[in-house]
Amino acid sequence: RDRFTLIAGPCAIESEEMSLRVAKKIKEMCERLGINYIFKSSYDKANRSSVFSARGVGMEKGLKILKKVREEVGVPVITDIHEPWQAEEAAKFVDMLQIPAFLCRQTDLIVAAAKTGLPVNVKKGQFLAPWDAKNIVTKFKEMGNDNLLLCERGTTFGYNNFVVDMRSFLEMREFGYPIVFDATHSVQIPGGQGTSTGGNREYVFPLMRAALAVGVDAIFAEVHEDPDNAPCDGPNMLKLEDLEEILLKAIEIDDIVKKS
Amino acid sequence: RDRFTLIAGPCAIESEEMSLRVAKKIKEMCERLGINYIFKSSYDKANRSSVFSARGVGMEKGLKILKKVREEVGVPVITDIHEPWQAEEAAKFVDMLQIPAFLCRQTDLIVAAAKTGLPVNVKKGQFLAPWDAKNIVTKFKEMGNDNLLLCERGTTFGYNNFVVDMRSFLEMREFGYPIVFDATHSVQIPGGQGTSTGGNREYVFPLMRAALAVGVDAIFAEVHEDPDNAPCDGPNMLKLEDLEEILLKAIEIDDIVKKS
Amino acid sequence: RDRFTLIAGPCAIESEEMSLRVAKKIKEMCERLGINYIFKSSYDKANRSSVFSARGVGMEKGLKILKKVREEVGVPVITDIHEPWQAEEAAKFVDMLQIPAFLCRQTDLIVAAAKTGLPVNVKKGQFLAPWDAKNIVTKFKEMGNDNLLLCERGTTFGYNNFVVDMRSFLEMREFGYPIVFDATHSVQIPGGQGTSTGGNREYVFPLMRAALAVGVDAIFAEVHEDPDNAPCDGPNMLKLEDLEEILLKAIEIDDIVKKS
Amino acid sequence: RDRFTLIAGPCAIESEEMSLRVAKKIKEMCERLGINYIFKSSYDKANRSSVFSARGVGMEKGLKILKKVREEVGVPVITDIHEPWQAEEAAKFVDMLQIPAFLCRQTDLIVAAAKTGLPVNVKKGQFLAPWDAKNIVTKFKEMGNDNLLLCERGTTFGYNNFVVDMRSFLEMREFGYPIVFDATHSVQIPGGQGTSTGGNREYVFPLMRAALAVGVDAIFAEVHEDPDNAPCDGPNMLKLEDLEEILLKAIEIDDIVKKS
Repeated sequence: RDRFTLIAGPCAIESEEMSLRVAKKIKEMCERLGINYIFKSSYDKANRSSVFSARGVGMEKGLKILKKVREEVGVPVITDIHEPWQAEEAAKFVDMLQIPAFLCRQTDLIVAAAKTGLPVNVKKGQFLAPWDAKNIVTKFKEMGNDNLLLCERGTTFGYNNFVVDMRSFLEMREFGYPIVFDATHSVQIPGGQGTSTGGNREYVFPLMRAALAVGVDAIFAEVHEDPDNAPCDGPNMLKLEDLEEILLKAIEIDDIVKKS
Repeated sequence: RDRFTLIAGPCAIESEEMSLRVAKKIKEMCERLGINYIFKSSYDKANRSSVFSARGVGMEKGLKILKKVREEVGVPVITDIHEPWQAEEAAKFVDMLQIPAFLCRQTDLIVAAAKTGLPVNVKKGQFLAPWDAKNIVTKFKEMGNDNLLLCERGTTFGYNNFVVDMRSFLEMREFGYPIVFDATHSVQIPGGQGTSTGGNREYVFPLMRAALAVGVDAIFAEVHEDPDNAPCDGPNMLKLEDLEEILLKAIEIDDIVKKS
Repeated sequence: RDRFTLIAGPCAIESEEMSLRVAKKIKEMCERLGINYIFKSSYDKANRSSVFSARGVGMEKGLKILKKVREEVGVPVITDIHEPWQAEEAAKFVDMLQIPAFLCRQTDLIVAAAKTGLPVNVKKGQFLAPWDAKNIVTKFKEMGNDNLLLCERGTTFGYNNFVVDMRSFLEMREFGYPIVFDATHSVQIPGGQGTSTGGNREYVFPLMRAALAVGVDAIFAEVHEDPDNAPCDGPNMLKLEDLEEILLKAIEIDDIVKKS
Repeated sequence: RDRFTLIAGPCAIESEEMSLRVAKKIKEMCERLGINYIFKSSYDKANRSSVFSARGVGMEKGLKILKKVREEVGVPVITDIHEPWQAEEAAKFVDMLQIPAFLCRQTDLIVAAAKTGLPVNVKKGQFLAPWDAKNIVTKFKEMGNDNLLLCERGTTFGYNNFVVDMRSFLEMREFGYPIVFDATHSVQIPGGQGTSTGGNREYVFPLMRAALAVGVDAIFAEVHEDPDNAPCDGPNMLKLEDLEEILLKAIEIDDIVKKS
């Protein structure tokens, strides 16, 4: 089994310059470390806690920026979509699509994403048992798209809290598709800050180590140059300057677990 | 405070005849009992567990049927919508809109529904604390729509289970809007039947009594002439023939709780 | 089915005078209202959050006070026990025994309580599914004691929170024994106040109504003349002066649910 | 920080011969691998699901066997106690005491164990938030016993399920005491087999890796020569013949995490 892939980038596309700069830095880092890298950033934050929350640059502008990142930096790019019609449009600009956790049960969205033929990272809903990801798998099979990734991002655990059930990686692996751990959304504190969502950045690296120790194929992490001043997900994003040290230890654990 | 309103009907619109027949029967029953009645049925089941699950008659046909129910039977009608563009279209045919629980965090959908000016029943997500319904309230206020209803439909409780936290009615009431209890979806067993969702019909009436004893403004219940052969939600829908007896006792509890 | 029984009294035995006074007041109230009444108070709070928490008057003194309440006021009395040897001793002074929720899985304690032949109220553990109360039932049957009551006191729901699953009354009723709802411990916030346990008194009455609307045989409630200055469980105990009004409405709901 | 210690042995003391044989095998293995080893076995299973469940050899016989293991095999031994009076007695025979998870809130038991001056492994209750282990810590400090270990054994997650919240190791570490992961009880399925408790042995090793990747001081695991025919905890105990391979990889992860 191969070393884990890193899917990372700022929560929201803030500007072309910033996207290019961050993508380039992480790409160089991953090349040094021997990790496959996919740039992730969202053109729209469609499920924010409040209408006052930042939404991003919009779809048209965002997709152009993603394309530019892909061409100029030379990395594959992924973005999330929120309505079925966006799948085909986004597919013209990106290499992979992502289905947000809240929307993993929306059949039309899953079908539209699957139909593009692109690889799709589906986040398991906060309300879904790992074995019930089976229905997502079935929908992809029906559509003839075998490029599915299943992502754990934490499960509802009482109010205003998620827990990462490490057994879910083992359960979802049974379906035969690559498994992703979303290390930064898993430490969110939903509703924990009034009109936006809080988080616990200090848990990100330990949970990432735990997931790799169980065995995953990719790590998803939102990374920002200055998380505390980011327009969204600040409390749970990693600092770009901390990333390399984190990846170094992550690789060590991953290598141990994956060697025969 | 007024007696509770009943929002009820078959899970999915199966045919015009059936919709008219069920709506008429429940309407007559509610008139006898002195209960306000709103007919509910869905033109599309957009979050089914499987692509093989029944989806309903489709939007165009479904909305026409709902309009016919409203005109011929003389009852207000409500239906759920799943994408923002559907709000304006559905608003031409129905009296109320409903936001599915999985989608209660989708800002564009909330905004589109609120903009119609119609009353909107928003189901609190299975992943949401009652106090975090505040963000839904805020979005409606921003849109200038004060016709919001907040609906409890059970909260994620471990895997493949929901629990109805009766405190949520008290918490959500603090926002100043009518509170609805969805008595039939609350007893679903998510993922419990492989490719469709199971349920426990025998819990519906007891939980309904409990919610009324705490104090709610409306009861939502899916009702079918033959639930065991219904295309969806069979295991948790009420039998039409049982409804009157249930409502009779529900009224007694409601009257006690609401008298000063 | 009969009207519910009330099991009530101050969390801890504070003094003989206070126990007699409270027992007398509640007894008179229950006679006026036509409710069976059982006086409850603990001689020892053995599972306090802290060694600094008040523990009560001690077993020897406490049991004498309970006996005096029983003789002078003329009400049956119940107390909880925490170690097997206490069962036989307490049985000389009281009419009923109670097993704390944390201890419902301790076989020796269950067996010792069952062996006394007294009625025993076993609180279902915060960690136990309603159907798993079956093991408690089995142990009583084995001991030949058929005077078992099963009590719901809330289930662990994430951290620092309990939820009352109203379905549990239905599930536990299947065993054929009377079902009790502990309305005041169910609203505790475990660990919520540092070195003692917090609570939400305003939820007690609504949850009591809900439980009665589902159908229970007895209501357990800690009641105090001045809860805010009580040595334990202050935040969730009812005020004695509020009790009559609460019972009046509770009776109305109970009567509706229990009439054929 | 030092390599993790292993606390391991059969769930229940079945016989002197078997205890000596297993202790010796694990001791030799741990010496080869450079791991500190503590032999664990219970003389009494006091919280079994049923009175029909095996209870063990009894306290008197069990403590003698433990002493023999300690003297003949030359390993420290630990056993759990269930009532306060057992602490002093057990302390004459063993090197460490253990408090079962259900009993972690019983003040008298904690105090009695702390008073022995021995190191005590306290399992955090299935109903307790990690930060609420503070009350256990406080009680030990009050008693002047600083030899406390805090053990995670899974938290109630809905019905008939535990989840291991990997954040709990980080939270509990804040108290400044060694942290233990109970890898075999964490995968129990409480109540899952009618009159005894089920389990998922295949999760033990992955969860152990995850806990070590986060960082713990000791691993607790029940190990048996023939788990499927063991008198208790069969479905979640490790097979002795699998232990060395498991420990080898565990050491690799532990070493990576603990090197500076």
